Amino acid sequence: MTSQKPLILVTNDDGIHAAGLRALIDVVRELGDVVVVAPDKPQSGMSHAVTTSSPLRIRKIHEEPGYSEYSCNGTPADSVKLGENIVIKGKADLVVSGINHGSNSGINLFYSGTMAAAIEAAMGGVNAIGFSLLDYSLQADFESGKPYIRKIISRVLSEGLPLNTCLNVNIPSLPFQELKGIKVCRMGKGFWDEEMEERTDPHNHPYYWLAGNFVSRDIQTDTDEWALANHYVSVVPIQLDLTAYSLLEPLKHLENHD
Amino acid sequence: MTSQKPLILVTNDDGIHAAGLRALIDVVRELGDVVVVAPDKPQSGMSHAVTTSSPLRIRKIHEEPGYSEYSCNGTPADSVKLGENIVIKGKADLVVSGINHGSNSGINLFYSGTMAAAIEAAMGGVNAIGFSLLDYSLQADFESGKPYIRKIISRVLSEGLPLNTCLNVNIPSLPFQELKGIKVCRMGKGFWDEEMEERTDPHNHPYYWLAGNFVSRDIQTDTDEWALANHYVSVVPIQLDLTAYSLLEPLKHLENHD
Repeated sequence: MTSQKPLILVTNDDGIHAAGLRALIDVVRELGDVVVVAPDKPQSGMSHAVTTSSPLRIRKIHEEPGYSEYSCNGTPADSVKLGENIVIKGKADLVVSGINHGSNSGINLFYSGTMAAAIEAAMGGVNAIGFSLLDYSLQADFESGKPYIRKIISRVLSEGLPLNTCLNVNIPSLPFQELKGIKVCRMGKGFWDEEMEERTDPHNHPYYWLAGNFVSRDIQTDTDEWALANHYVSVVPIQLDLTAYSLLEPLKHLENHD
Repeated sequence: MTSQKPLILVTNDDGIHAAGLRALIDVVRELGDVVVVAPDKPQSGMSHAVTTSSPLRIRKIHEEPGYSEYSCNGTPADSVKLGENIVIKGKADLVVSGINHGSNSGINLFYSGTMAAAIEAAMGGVNAIGFSLLDYSLQADFESGKPYIRKIISRVLSEGLPLNTCLNVNIPSLPFQELKGIKVCRMGKGFWDEEMEERTDPHNHPYYWLAGNFVSRDIQTDTDEWALANHYVSVVPIQLDLTAYSLLEPLKHLENHD
């Protein structure tokens, strides 16, 4: 690599053909050399799944100076691993994932393939950001968030993030003039009030569709859920340690031999 | 439910036929009424994937007073949702997941279907524990860990865990007399030194197997990695907030309109 430009690896979970991926590619091509490695089919809800029991394939779709594009038969996390190990043969300066078609705010991060790709990169010590737009439709408009995406990526490229951290960025689905700016927030607490929708097939057997409602249990104004409801782009810094430190002491009695 | 016994929902990620699941069922049947809902095929490495684009099916395999067993076509997280929504039609007193065939210590939690099931339950406010044995083989011996599993489950049943927390328990693959006891620990930091193993198919096309080495970057003695290497059963309390609080202030400048 003779270029002095930063090397940016792009992936997503909606697959190589998603409009949100194209919008993110538009932004990062202005900011560095770009390698795209994305799943060849939608991988929404795949979380941090990795493919260990079947072989992975990667296919070059396009290559020109400073830009190349690959699809693979894996998950978002696999895409990061393939991008680093097979295409780049090293680490990128930045991994960006998205723009997801739909929210990944609050605890929904746990289900998110978009954020798993960012977390996968962060595990390996690479700066990473996941972007999501709060619009599930195929016709979602990714334009109005672009200036914010550009700003956030530029800052991370110039200043970096601490080791093993990444950013979870969610963008309200609103015209640019209605977006109020950026809020740096904590993850909102909440849960899914799950309804499995029961149906009956032509053979009279039941089947179920997952169809729940997200319930926020946070009423404070420092969460991503609040920021998004109030028309801000939310930026949540994420770290990879899930230890409940406050429980280490209360659980010590488990160590007793009794 | 007229029984005064606790209701325990059991799942795993290795599937309904796994020896580790059978070992866990053995333990919990002594401690309460038990509902098993497990994937009908192995779901290892599925992390917190959920099934939203295809319908879910659940099949009753066995039922007797105080014990029932179901398989489903979903992931470990789906199994918890189906168990709560379709079978129990409410919440269990405890969700246990495992015993996984292989380690889920440190950051490997992110890839783990076993721990995703526990986290899924914890999101819904239910006490939950994931168990893993450090032996990937089908012939793994799950006997020696059973007294520890019984002790940990009994304590959680009697004392509970704080809202939205769960436990990640890993067990060395050793004879009982070589296990030194329980250590309550934090998640060890580490990363995968990924090697994609390249092979060539009969048609001369390359394919890749994921085959990395886990590298611990933690030399301290308060981690699960240390405990396991020193023949202790590790118990890591897990919480669901990944916010990097120390970065909220340094990132505030992103909120500036410039």
